[in-house]
Amino acid sequence: MNKVFAINPATDFVLERHIDAPVQLVWEVLTKPEHLKQWYMPKAWGAVSKCEMDVRPGGMFSIDIATGDGKEFPNLGCFIEVRPMERLVWTSMLFPGYRPAVFDDVPITAIVTLQASGTGTRYVFTALHRNEGDFKQNKESGWQEGTLIAMAQFVAHVNSLK
Amino acid sequence: MNKVFAINPATDFVLERHIDAPVQLVWEVLTKPEHLKQWYMPKAWGAVSKCEMDVRPGGMFSIDIATGDGKEFPNLGCFIEVRPMERLVWTSMLFPGYRPAVFDDVPITAIVTLQASGTGTRYVFTALHRNEGDFKQNKESGWQEGTLIAMAQFVAHVNSLK
Repeated sequence: MNKVFAINPATDFVLERHIDAPVQLVWEVLTKPEHLKQWYMPKAWGAVSKCEMDVRPGGMFSIDIATGDGKEFPNLGCFIEVRPMERLVWTSMLFPGYRPAVFDDVPITAIVTLQASGTGTRYVFTALHRNEGDFKQNKESGWQEGTLIAMAQFVAHVNSLK
Repeated sequence: MNKVFAINPATDFVLERHIDAPVQLVWEVLTKPEHLKQWYMPKAWGAVSKCEMDVRPGGMFSIDIATGDGKEFPNLGCFIEVRPMERLVWTSMLFPGYRPAVFDDVPITAIVTLQASGTGTRYVFTALHRNEGDFKQNKESGWQEGTLIAMAQFVAHVNSLK
């Protein structure tokens, strides 16, 4: 295995949680628009105004964010790997159908793995960056803080459905 | 199906050939380094000096080109979809392991489909670009001409193996 495959703490953001809910429920909250609307955006910062998830390789990952000041920010990406209840990979480097993307924000590839753990689920979110500079920018811009808040909202939303 | 999935003649390069050889052989010539070295680079322009193909989703697509003037040009990308003898997708937007890539050249996603046709193979190569500007640049830079020459070398090499 080549070294470029490896997760690198200098460039990659890894978040791990034990969620006290079955894998099936966690997968649904991760992939279904009606659930994503409840957790994807820190509630104090804005809201998901539109969400479309075509959960298959090459399918659309699309989330529009509305902020308090009336602005809208589209997030468009593409699913790459879909193994239901096990592993989900999407990237902002590609648009749906794998078309090379045009983007403003720091691009990432996100990898989520789920694993049954007792009666709950081990959840690991990894965001791969191009390099240390991109990761630093995401740490300082609020992206990392927003991702942590969204993770807490995700867990709270899963728990509310049990 | 969303319109962004569609092939667009203004942004995408499509090349179709009937190859008088079985799909199995065409797949091998497409994916094995010892064969890629024979056809990937127009012979009058340079040669493949190094080739590594890890043909699985997330795997490495790596081809170094040596030109007559002693320079070397790496090409590093990532396989996304691998359906043996049917469909192969790779992109220069991602490095192996789906890491967002850093690149100098115009990025593309390449999709190759193979289909048995009589005793031969219908071969379709599609290169997706970000936009019309990128496609125009690839037409004018020699990329398109190089791809056409490589396609002819590909067919000749397959025929030499029958």
